[in-house]
Amino acid sequence: MANPSILILPGDGIGAEVMVEVRKIIDWFGANRGLEFDVSEDLVGGAAYDKHGTPLHDDTMAKAQEVDAVLLGAVGGPKYDNLDFSVKPERGLLRLRKEMDLFANLRPAQCFDALADFSSLKKDVVAGLDIVIVRELTSGVYFGEPRGIFEEGNERVGINTQRYTESEIDRAARAAFELARKRNNKVCSMEKANVMESGILWREVVQKVHDEDYPDVELSHMYADNGAMQLVRAPKQFDVILTDNLFGDILSDCAAMLTGSLGMLPSASLGAPMANGRPKALYEPVHGSAPDIAGQGKANPIACILSFAMALRYSFDQGDEATRLEEAVEKVLADGARTADLMGPEGGVPLSTSEMGDAIVAAL
Amino acid sequence: MANPSILILPGDGIGAEVMVEVRKIIDWFGANRGLEFDVSEDLVGGAAYDKHGTPLHDDTMAKAQEVDAVLLGAVGGPKYDNLDFSVKPERGLLRLRKEMDLFANLRPAQCFDALADFSSLKKDVVAGLDIVIVRELTSGVYFGEPRGIFEEGNERVGINTQRYTESEIDRAARAAFELARKRNNKVCSMEKANVMESGILWREVVQKVHDEDYPDVELSHMYADNGAMQLVRAPKQFDVILTDNLFGDILSDCAAMLTGSLGMLPSASLGAPMANGRPKALYEPVHGSAPDIAGQGKANPIACILSFAMALRYSFDQGDEATRLEEAVEKVLADGARTADLMGPEGGVPLSTSEMGDAIVAAL
Ligand SMILES: CC(C)[C@H](C(=O)O)[C@@H](O)C(=O)O
Ligand SMILES: CC(C)[C@H](C(=O)O)[C@@H](O)C(=O)O
Repeated sequence: MANPSILILPGDGIGAEVMVEVRKIIDWFGANRGLEFDVSEDLVGGAAYDKHGTPLHDDTMAKAQEVDAVLLGAVGGPKYDNLDFSVKPERGLLRLRKEMDLFANLRPAQCFDALADFSSLKKDVVAGLDIVIVRELTSGVYFGEPRGIFEEGNERVGINTQRYTESEIDRAARAAFELARKRNNKVCSMEKANVMESGILWREVVQKVHDEDYPDVELSHMYADNGAMQLVRAPKQFDVILTDNLFGDILSDCAAMLTGSLGMLPSASLGAPMANGRPKALYEPVHGSAPDIAGQGKANPIACILSFAMALRYSFDQGDEATRLEEAVEKVLADGARTADLMGPEGGVPLSTSEMGDAIVAAL
Repeated sequence: MANPSILILPGDGIGAEVMVEVRKIIDWFGANRGLEFDVSEDLVGGAAYDKHGTPLHDDTMAKAQEVDAVLLGAVGGPKYDNLDFSVKPERGLLRLRKEMDLFANLRPAQCFDALADFSSLKKDVVAGLDIVIVRELTSGVYFGEPRGIFEEGNERVGINTQRYTESEIDRAARAAFELARKRNNKVCSMEKANVMESGILWREVVQKVHDEDYPDVELSHMYADNGAMQLVRAPKQFDVILTDNLFGDILSDCAAMLTGSLGMLPSASLGAPMANGRPKALYEPVHGSAPDIAGQGKANPIACILSFAMALRYSFDQGDEATRLEEAVEKVLADGARTADLMGPEGGVPLSTSEMGDAIVAAL
């Protein structure tokens, strides 16, 4: 049987250097655990624009549709800020999400014991935090039509459309309930049903999916503004949070920052099962392209490495190997290994990107 | 000359009991500072629905248009959760905002020294925090058409429309720049220009207003997801944050929770100047109707009292009297006066709503 295939899209900024470390990890699993992957690499974002004049070439899109998993670094940077909307680096990422139909974006916000002091929140509020945001990723205001800037009378108007069908809400809800069953069996769904009709439909469909097929999961509903408050006040009250594309963007970043270590947080974006039973999947760190430190060997590769751990779990059914990798990361942290972003006020000499990668390989 | 007029709309839940304390304060200013107001009172939200079958009676709307300032308590409660969207308590508040054209919602997030320990954030991250969010309040996805739940093929779709004209953005931006000039001269504008065309127009217009008329104010732009992160990570980097209706809803609640004491936070919603030069204005606490503690004399009246202080400042040009009131609040807190929501783990006997009101009157 052919090896499972992975397409690596380092993208922009620190994407390239963190991906080098991920390849070390992939190689280690091939050499030591008999998990060989066919790895190919291509361009996305500003890097693709520079070469092809588009943030995602059609050939790359086609490849992404064929592989078993895509690993993406990050897109964007000041160099591309003034590009036309249609060719901005972000459009490459959004096209991947949309055309691969990756409707379930899983964003864990987990606070590592060794790093609890890094949070701007009090230690007891975040120590042991382990929640996952399930963000709908292919619809809502990110993709709804009509959209654009139009003339109206003697001025312009900017328009975007928030739009959710029942089936779009249904499948996102199922992803959240399935995940909750493997965790602490609790889902909190967030919208603004008090001011938005799309939120009313969202709440209704989530409740219906629950009542019909997941009555064993504890379900609650919360307005998204209160959700932001509760995340800051007492995040450990949550297990799985289910929300739409735009609220998910804001709330998951808020949740990520609670942990104090953005350089640690992975994400998985999953779609429907392919012919081989594996879901369409793209894995990426939550952090961005960090142009200010790109190319300096300062970036923390852990978020990207943990994204590969999510790939092992969700794409390749290798939960034990994923845990092995996650434990290796915890071990190096417990041993005091720190990249620059994880240095406390006590100071010390930070590890470089590649030293951190090597430390994790050694811990494996 | 006639006294300035105030319409009090206590609304639902704890709205009524906190408003009783505000009336004590209003009376004090009449008796002791020669500031007499013509005060009337009416219904809004669920209370109005119970009596009139609508969350805002046309007569009340007409009164609100005539007075110099509206003071609102809070709307909503579980009793009204299953009402039809069009008569939900929130619609009453939204109608006031829309028909009075209150486009600039000022939401200070201020951390009181005496209460810095209440925040879930580390003390050094929030002590001395003093930022204001200027939220556009009459447009965006809250009001854009088309909206509703529609049949499409064999399923339903929920639709809302995010919509901003140049002039709507322009006037919100001016409110933020004007406010910044009276503070630390810094505005950070937040949107999602990387994924939404309405965000692109927002950014462009804000920049233009700045360059043409407020070049002295320091302006930056930030994506709203990053904004949520930065609020959690290092909120003191901000002075005035300018954002749209929906992002403002989420981000201002997130900012409010940083302070740890929601029961302390006022807000002002301002429109265009009336014939007498005063702006159309509505003042309300940031907290909600807190149905769980309503009617028990446990609610903290300070947010509502500080909303009246904002009325003194923005509607009645009595900045010194506003400061007098704010200092009285700070004094009672420094002296250890605490309602139940402000009790630390050390415990003690909390003040009731009316005891807190009396303490503030005494401090005046
Ligand atoms: C880069 C950007 C398009 C993206 C988004 O808004 O979804 C990012 O913020 C994210 O959360 O993955
Ligand atoms: C009550 C509700 C309609 C309102 C809003 O969403 O604007 C509230 O959350 C607020 O922030 O004032």
